[in-house]
Amino acid sequence: MDIALLVFPRLTALDAIGPYEVLQRLPGAQVRFVGAERGMVRTEQGMLGIVADYDTSEVTSADILVVPGGIGTRALVSHEPLLEWIRAIDAGSTWTTSVCTGSLLLGAAGLLAGLKATTHWAALDLLEPYGATPVSERVVEQGKIITAAGVSSGIDMALRLAAHVAGDEIAQAIQLGIEYDPQPPFDSGSVAKATEAVRNLTLAGLAHEDATR
Amino acid sequence: MDIALLVFPRLTALDAIGPYEVLQRLPGAQVRFVGAERGMVRTEQGMLGIVADYDTSEVTSADILVVPGGIGTRALVSHEPLLEWIRAIDAGSTWTTSVCTGSLLLGAAGLLAGLKATTHWAALDLLEPYGATPVSERVVEQGKIITAAGVSSGIDMALRLAAHVAGDEIAQAIQLGIEYDPQPPFDSGSVAKATEAVRNLTLAGLAHEDATR
Repeated sequence: MDIALLVFPRLTALDAIGPYEVLQRLPGAQVRFVGAERGMVRTEQGMLGIVADYDTSEVTSADILVVPGGIGTRALVSHEPLLEWIRAIDAGSTWTTSVCTGSLLLGAAGLLAGLKATTHWAALDLLEPYGATPVSERVVEQGKIITAAGVSSGIDMALRLAAHVAGDEIAQAIQLGIEYDPQPPFDSGSVAKATEAVRNLTLAGLAHEDATR
Repeated sequence: MDIALLVFPRLTALDAIGPYEVLQRLPGAQVRFVGAERGMVRTEQGMLGIVADYDTSEVTSADILVVPGGIGTRALVSHEPLLEWIRAIDAGSTWTTSVCTGSLLLGAAGLLAGLKATTHWAALDLLEPYGATPVSERVVEQGKIITAAGVSSGIDMALRLAAHVAGDEIAQAIQLGIEYDPQPPFDSGSVAKATEAVRNLTLAGLAHEDATR
């Protein structure tokens, strides 16, 4: 099971590492972290460096493609060589997936035209220009294309994918391995549940991230 | 808010990145990834490299210490210089925390004696030699020491900690920012809920990880 995980400057770390932690536990999994160039990329606020062991020219196929999000996606939606790579991997993949605003890259690559898709709740309207129908669901499956909502949703997406790939029992064993029995201290993890004050606080934080781009 | 996050060879990626993704969103947060030496460490199965920007000699204090787990902890419970660093950071910290088997390092440093603590469910009995009382709870708070259960529990721990540090509304805004509205496809994330067959599959996987150490 050959898994390619795209990384790029200013990605959101958990978008990538949530699915990584699940999928690397699949029997026979080999996860490759792939960047436009080999070497370290810094995450959204620059506080973490993670390493692309491969550049895109070195990875020409994968069973599963995972595209994480982050503010760094905005610079990449017009990066034609990267979009061409996404198209090429998708052409041979069994599953093509995204987390958060990673779906903007799938969209920009032309893979979401006519499909339902999701992304971070604050970015849903950015999907429409790509011909996708944005939906407020945590994980959206459209054939082999799976898009997940914001950041932490990649864990749920990857567990679903693990079940498709290896069966329910293996997926459940992975869930137990990462002790994924969530107990959030608050019930404010979706825009439908959070108060307006909390939503405004979150948007102010996201605006700050944009400003520091 | 100065946050030190310890990294080491064969850590579990999500143990570190779950709390990172939450805590880096605290107002004024500065997260430093700290290793015994500067440079890249590889995670549990070697498929991911993450970067320690600082070595322990460069980080002499922190408001919050986060110690993740992973099979790599087993080699570190007798690494006296590292344990001495943990003690020194704890001496000046406001909060000292662990995820998964990171609590074994807090224990080996002598910080859990007489306290209740938790860790990954498959490692609970390893806490007793350090004078801790193992408990099967997702997050265990004992004064300024907070230990979390396996892998994904670090997200819940960090949201609780965010509320302590910055108040409930900020913590809720962070939860919404990472869209943490978990929808696991199965209810097998704790040893109390998983079937025996699933538990055995998980343990076989963990044994395999040990074997490849």
